[in-house]
Amino acid sequence: MVEAVRSHAFSAPEIAAVYRAIDERRDMRHFSGGEVAPELMRRLLQAAHHAPSVGFMQPWRFIRISTRPLREALHALVERERVLTARALGEREEEFMRLKVEGLLSAAEVWVVALADGREKHVFGRRTLPHMDLASAACAIQNLWLAARAEGLGMGWVSLFEPGAVSALLQMPPGAEPIALLCIGPVDGFYEEPMLQKERWARRSPLDDLIYEDSWGRAMTAAA
Amino acid sequence: MVEAVRSHAFSAPEIAAVYRAIDERRDMRHFSGGEVAPELMRRLLQAAHHAPSVGFMQPWRFIRISTRPLREALHALVERERVLTARALGEREEEFMRLKVEGLLSAAEVWVVALADGREKHVFGRRTLPHMDLASAACAIQNLWLAARAEGLGMGWVSLFEPGAVSALLQMPPGAEPIALLCIGPVDGFYEEPMLQKERWARRSPLDDLIYEDSWGRAMTAAA
Repeated sequence: MVEAVRSHAFSAPEIAAVYRAIDERRDMRHFSGGEVAPELMRRLLQAAHHAPSVGFMQPWRFIRISTRPLREALHALVERERVLTARALGEREEEFMRLKVEGLLSAAEVWVVALADGREKHVFGRRTLPHMDLASAACAIQNLWLAARAEGLGMGWVSLFEPGAVSALLQMPPGAEPIALLCIGPVDGFYEEPMLQKERWARRSPLDDLIYEDSWGRAMTAAA
Repeated sequence: MVEAVRSHAFSAPEIAAVYRAIDERRDMRHFSGGEVAPELMRRLLQAAHHAPSVGFMQPWRFIRISTRPLREALHALVERERVLTARALGEREEEFMRLKVEGLLSAAEVWVVALADGREKHVFGRRTLPHMDLASAACAIQNLWLAARAEGLGMGWVSLFEPGAVSALLQMPPGAEPIALLCIGPVDGFYEEPMLQKERWARRSPLDDLIYEDSWGRAMTAAA
């Protein structure tokens, strides 16, 4: 017990639960309507808000889409970008067009995540890497995603949109930047593997191909 | 039981464990040396590799720093940027210089995370938002962070460096981009609150200030 405290590790079942959330989280595009109780939605947003942020700047803002016309307007923007993306893909155009890439009209909740305006004054950790604010907001979204999975809700992150069009639709001030349309809600089931792997769009790379030692491309000398 | 299966929710203790990892994760800058067993390090990297990625592109690469001279070279790069950042902060220069911003020399493990070269061919979800690859890699780092916290290890993400200098030091190819120096390892204890809040650099914002409805700046009509 003293050793457990000294090591600061969670209990074995707690550790397993954290890995379970990480392993079973999926980018969902199939939802079953329904609703998310406000207190549950608030727990998810609190989880997001407990993400790390560069210089503790907390750049994230969350905009709930409450009306059907606004949701349909976002859907139309995504549909437009879906077609433009397909064309840009060239030989994979048709294959891409067959994929389901979003669940905006069937998810219980749609939230837009944006980076706040006024970020230029936050220099800590961003002088040479200004996009670290996006990295922080992505950590917030990942927290929300894992919490949603544990709570039994699906979530999908849609990034198929023209940011200027979403900014205009939601009357964002200059300097603010939408980074995600989040679809959140009940699902009939979670994909057993990433949907893009199931659909043979891409496969998970072997971990060892992504790990180097001391220099780009140099294999580890011992197993990590 | 049937209801629990239908809802896809984890058990209550599992849900609590996920929130615990989210709440107790800290950006650590104080480490107590020691080591991280290779099999534990591999679990953390597997957790990272199970992050979502835009178009399943898996842009993340992990470079272990195994030699003391290389670690010291990274530390020197961070120290240089720390001074430049302090100057750029103007009136908060001295306050910033008093903060401990990294634990590169005392952490058991140092890993550099980078975005891979060749990303331009991945158009899915990135045609209008090319930085979504960084967002994906940030999700991977957040997974690693939460897994490390559950396993009782501290982690810190250092972004005080000139990316070109780190690229050169680790012989990265054109198009690859370092985004994080991760310090990982045993700690004497975790900060009870974010260190930058404890040190009065910044405070956590009230959640309600970050949530809007349908339009930027418009308060929610009902509690979320």
